[in-house]
Amino acid sequence: MSHNSFGHLFRMTTFGESHGPALGCVVDGCPPGLSLRAEDIQTYLDKRRPGQSRFTTQRKEPDQVKILSGVFEDERTDGPRTTGTPIMLMIENVDQRSKDYADIRDKFRPGHADFTYQAKYGIRDYRGGGRSSARETVARVAAGAVARKVIPGVTIRGALVQMGPHKINRVNWDWSEVDRNPFFTPDAKAAAFYEDYLDSIRKAGSSIGAVIEVTASGVPAGWGAPLYGKLDQDLASAMMSINAVKGVEIGSGFASAELSGEENADEIRMQNGKPEFTSNHAGGILGGISSGQDIVVRFAVKPTSSILSTRKTVTAGGEDADIFTKGRHDPCVGIRAVPVGEAMMALVLADHFLRHRGQAG
Amino acid sequence: MSHNSFGHLFRMTTFGESHGPALGCVVDGCPPGLSLRAEDIQTYLDKRRPGQSRFTTQRKEPDQVKILSGVFEDERTDGPRTTGTPIMLMIENVDQRSKDYADIRDKFRPGHADFTYQAKYGIRDYRGGGRSSARETVARVAAGAVARKVIPGVTIRGALVQMGPHKINRVNWDWSEVDRNPFFTPDAKAAAFYEDYLDSIRKAGSSIGAVIEVTASGVPAGWGAPLYGKLDQDLASAMMSINAVKGVEIGSGFASAELSGEENADEIRMQNGKPEFTSNHAGGILGGISSGQDIVVRFAVKPTSSILSTRKTVTAGGEDADIFTKGRHDPCVGIRAVPVGEAMMALVLADHFLRHRGQAG
Amino acid sequence: MSHNSFGHLFRMTTFGESHGPALGCVVDGCPPGLSLRAEDIQTYLDKRRPGQSRFTTQRKEPDQVKILSGVFEDERTDGPRTTGTPIMLMIENVDQRSKDYADIRDKFRPGHADFTYQAKYGIRDYRGGGRSSARETVARVAAGAVARKVIPGVTIRGALVQMGPHKINRVNWDWSEVDRNPFFTPDAKAAAFYEDYLDSIRKAGSSIGAVIEVTASGVPAGWGAPLYGKLDQDLASAMMSINAVKGVEIGSGFASAELSGEENADEIRMQNGKPEFTSNHAGGILGGISSGQDIVVRFAVKPTSSILSTRKTVTAGGEDADIFTKGRHDPCVGIRAVPVGEAMMALVLADHFLRHRGQAG
Amino acid sequence: MSHNSFGHLFRMTTFGESHGPALGCVVDGCPPGLSLRAEDIQTYLDKRRPGQSRFTTQRKEPDQVKILSGVFEDERTDGPRTTGTPIMLMIENVDQRSKDYADIRDKFRPGHADFTYQAKYGIRDYRGGGRSSARETVARVAAGAVARKVIPGVTIRGALVQMGPHKINRVNWDWSEVDRNPFFTPDAKAAAFYEDYLDSIRKAGSSIGAVIEVTASGVPAGWGAPLYGKLDQDLASAMMSINAVKGVEIGSGFASAELSGEENADEIRMQNGKPEFTSNHAGGILGGISSGQDIVVRFAVKPTSSILSTRKTVTAGGEDADIFTKGRHDPCVGIRAVPVGEAMMALVLADHFLRHRGQAG
Repeated sequence: MSHNSFGHLFRMTTFGESHGPALGCVVDGCPPGLSLRAEDIQTYLDKRRPGQSRFTTQRKEPDQVKILSGVFEDERTDGPRTTGTPIMLMIENVDQRSKDYADIRDKFRPGHADFTYQAKYGIRDYRGGGRSSARETVARVAAGAVARKVIPGVTIRGALVQMGPHKINRVNWDWSEVDRNPFFTPDAKAAAFYEDYLDSIRKAGSSIGAVIEVTASGVPAGWGAPLYGKLDQDLASAMMSINAVKGVEIGSGFASAELSGEENADEIRMQNGKPEFTSNHAGGILGGISSGQDIVVRFAVKPTSSILSTRKTVTAGGEDADIFTKGRHDPCVGIRAVPVGEAMMALVLADHFLRHRGQAG
Repeated sequence: MSHNSFGHLFRMTTFGESHGPALGCVVDGCPPGLSLRAEDIQTYLDKRRPGQSRFTTQRKEPDQVKILSGVFEDERTDGPRTTGTPIMLMIENVDQRSKDYADIRDKFRPGHADFTYQAKYGIRDYRGGGRSSARETVARVAAGAVARKVIPGVTIRGALVQMGPHKINRVNWDWSEVDRNPFFTPDAKAAAFYEDYLDSIRKAGSSIGAVIEVTASGVPAGWGAPLYGKLDQDLASAMMSINAVKGVEIGSGFASAELSGEENADEIRMQNGKPEFTSNHAGGILGGISSGQDIVVRFAVKPTSSILSTRKTVTAGGEDADIFTKGRHDPCVGIRAVPVGEAMMALVLADHFLRHRGQAG
Repeated sequence: MSHNSFGHLFRMTTFGESHGPALGCVVDGCPPGLSLRAEDIQTYLDKRRPGQSRFTTQRKEPDQVKILSGVFEDERTDGPRTTGTPIMLMIENVDQRSKDYADIRDKFRPGHADFTYQAKYGIRDYRGGGRSSARETVARVAAGAVARKVIPGVTIRGALVQMGPHKINRVNWDWSEVDRNPFFTPDAKAAAFYEDYLDSIRKAGSSIGAVIEVTASGVPAGWGAPLYGKLDQDLASAMMSINAVKGVEIGSGFASAELSGEENADEIRMQNGKPEFTSNHAGGILGGISSGQDIVVRFAVKPTSSILSTRKTVTAGGEDADIFTKGRHDPCVGIRAVPVGEAMMALVLADHFLRHRGQAG
Repeated sequence: MSHNSFGHLFRMTTFGESHGPALGCVVDGCPPGLSLRAEDIQTYLDKRRPGQSRFTTQRKEPDQVKILSGVFEDERTDGPRTTGTPIMLMIENVDQRSKDYADIRDKFRPGHADFTYQAKYGIRDYRGGGRSSARETVARVAAGAVARKVIPGVTIRGALVQMGPHKINRVNWDWSEVDRNPFFTPDAKAAAFYEDYLDSIRKAGSSIGAVIEVTASGVPAGWGAPLYGKLDQDLASAMMSINAVKGVEIGSGFASAELSGEENADEIRMQNGKPEFTSNHAGGILGGISSGQDIVVRFAVKPTSSILSTRKTVTAGGEDADIFTKGRHDPCVGIRAVPVGEAMMALVLADHFLRHRGQAG
């Protein structure tokens, strides 16, 4: 069962609510002997942290991670190392702004999980969305940082490739550009455009969706498994588990529906003594197993439903009502989904690396 | 671990290869007391069965299912009933046409799993694709038929909504049309068009992709779970596990990336004493939990790589080669993915129904 | 979930009832490339097969196993090899003697699962015990034979060490004796005694319990895991899952409750350059992880409840009644538990070998 | 996979080391709406807490639990309630006495997990045993307290029934006596005897084993499942996962090996309109499913290996050595296993209650 856990051999279990004392996760199954310091994790948390530009929520959270178990250092070793036991990572909440929650206590915000949590559980922690808040993704990013240590030969990079209807121009793709703009987009021209575009959305109190692409280079052929442990299946599961994600595709994805068999099937040639594919419509996965090419995943993030317009809803008591969501929000929550998508990719790959090693040595 | 199993409380484990003696599955966790006869399952197998029109593979398989365990009938009951123990469903292979496999034994077919199975396992059953053959989906459809028994109030229906670049016109949507054309499409006009379109592809020895939509009506609010047991996450996993699927989306899916928060968030009004959503961009799922609206999933199926053109590849020995795939194939394998997608929807929902009942009574 | 599955990376899912058409299992996660023929499995099934002496049930079952998937042979290989895909093993039932089940249909046999299955499921396949029959263990033995292939350096041997109150004399222990008597006991003198002893029980229509010991030699240090994947924990689970088992112990087991710390803790000395323990109270497991010593497990098997005496019970309708179990039965069902215990040991070790390799390389 | 998790629908994942900053667990799958305060948990932690008599380790740990997620209280509710989301329970370590660990850093303590952790992981947190310390059981007791909330109709009680070779006299059994002596034993006369007996062992710097019995009353017929989800199987797994446990038995356990079928099979009679068993050799479980009788489990706890005698061992470097374990220890660690055994019983039953409800409504 996996209600709050993800992965099998490399497994993360998360806990915590938006306005509770802390969030975090237990990472189980990590190989022993890996160097791991809090700062290795902090790097990725900082990338995800809110409030770094005017384009993300203004909640101020230092998001300092503490490693509470699973690493050990003694005077003979060169720093802390994983011991193979559970690694507990905790991030304390700081900026739980005190406010009046009466409005969202009794009304269901359209597009939010308020209605469904209430239907399922009969009770919900409505403060800031509770468990359904995007704040939970801090735990994913922390666990993802550990996962990267497990697969050092793999390079995982994410990028925003579409905001609203505006796709980047792939000709301009430059990975180094991703860290130079607040949108994690690899197209400098698109970044310039998004700045004005998102400003207008933000000022209007509205929000917009986005598409994120995450790639992994250096994955050897052979990870993944038929038929219900497919690598692409687990990637789809991973990305769809991120808040606000509504679609996932691998390689050519939905576009492959429009292709002929001749166009779609990637041919193979020997190059430098190794088989190389001449294209990558498959996104690096055939039959659920990695082919050695880059793994390419894209996912669509819907616009935040927390907007400054009055919306029609109903109350818990069963009456029509209007609701108006005050407070801090992300005009394009897809931006901060970039480091989260990278983390989920890392978690899937670390798990499959161990699973492959288990079965096939 | 789930390499060949799917689901948790309601769980299917499949086995068998394309050219082995039999395929099938063990369905575990089925509630007791449900009426179950082979013919209940056969109905769905017949819908998926190959060779029913010129638009699917001409392999002749009766696909007769046998129930080898898990049901019991005595003179006091009105027919066989599930006992709560594992239900083993077996379908024997009949038309394993004897042929010369030397070509695919030594060469990797582009777009197939040949290359990755070999890389992972160092051995593969190359006859007809072995375990990676779409023939495995017969087990899914059989298990799905049992799953439907678990959730009798839910109606699951699938349809082909796009073939190649040609989408249906949703204005023409008529569910009853789906069973009247060989494409499982709900748009009679599109069906007429597809007939000529696919004939030309078939005669050219080519193939084409498709998009399938599966909906479930009658799912109550509350199924699913945060955060790694999300209903949409498990649906994404389910659909992506089907052979040749490259993308999955829920509700507005990728289109939601282009929407504003105002457009995307479904408002709620009281109607007949119950909350009703005024739109369904969410596809019936909020925060990973069903909202009571129709569950709507779409997935993209790539074109079959088995085409009658010569393709560039390499041999297992590491030499460049050409390959030409003879024999029977599906010009649009997406067609037969319709009953498979329905089955996967049924499996996810039956599992989540039991999981919800377990936790929340 | 594991209602009818056992293991994680090396995983068996069983199906079938005593009087259904067939029993068997799907073995998932088996490493690829292992030589596997039906006769490799048959050897162990033959050891467990009923009707081989007057001391086991006289049901005549050939128990011929068929391998229906997961192995592949071509003209270039030296026989069938596992492919890494699910191995389906099926044993057809032959001697489902037609009889009148009316008595056990309406009455609960004391000491049987009749009462609890009815309470849980509201329906039960009462023919020969259905799913609760010891006949299910045929699937365990088949899967166990595959598991042995995964850990070729490990020798697994089982023996009956107690029948009723009569323990063997460990001074007489001779493994080669186990195959020379119908009790699988390593003490020739005990075997001679058991022959008369069990004859008298059998003729009286009674039954008696037993204790079985299973050891594994050649397990390297390091298999198993803290804290809920302990090797001894999984062995306890494995043995307690066998029908009629009521107790499990590791190493000194219950006797260790009577020992002092000095007596119980096995000391270590270097021998031939390697650490060697000077005793094995631990049964080869410390902290849930193998120490390199022999793994030693014992389990208690209760006497069959199918006896030729009239017993007090109640009917499904809620009335007091007497019941008299006719037909074939095992006077000491513990005998046939020996190969079953060996199989469960093999399953646990194969799984833990793969799990260890996954995490720690 | 379950290396550091236990249970399925009701699932605990533990973390933390003996001398790290904190230990604790994440409890997942808890039903919503249950009243849960820290003091509900503290009651059980206090029972297990060390240093309460001279018969347990003198380490001083307040063992104050904090609930960091998964409960919610607002002004309309009568106190905090579970929300159905993960409940994180944390206990900070306080008395990590600074000491010189050089001796156990380089030498393997006989009877400890030092040797096997090193063999498995190549690294270990040797301070106080790290993850293998009995201190981990604090997390089990905390989770067990939550589990009890899930099954309010069930009464779970544990007792020490044997210390060294000295069994209690069951004629004297008085549950209320358990809380009146430092041994959790229900026989006042035995308690008096144990006081002197254990004092002499303690003063000699030695240690002794014990047997613990845990019973659950009020479990309805029908919990558990064939064949690898047996209630007794999961209880065996649960108890064997506790540090130092070497044997587990259900009902008559190993004694049933000595019984005839007539003696062992519990007969049934109608009483007050309900079926009642006239004895309970089965320990409340038939065919892996609860019968409605009391569930009865016993487990053997080996003596602590931390004793004040010099012992023979080897160093990590491969040399013979002597070791002498200084410091605080439990002369009979079985005593504190009583609340731990109760907790594990609660965890198994809560999980099986939810699993049963999931499958069979």
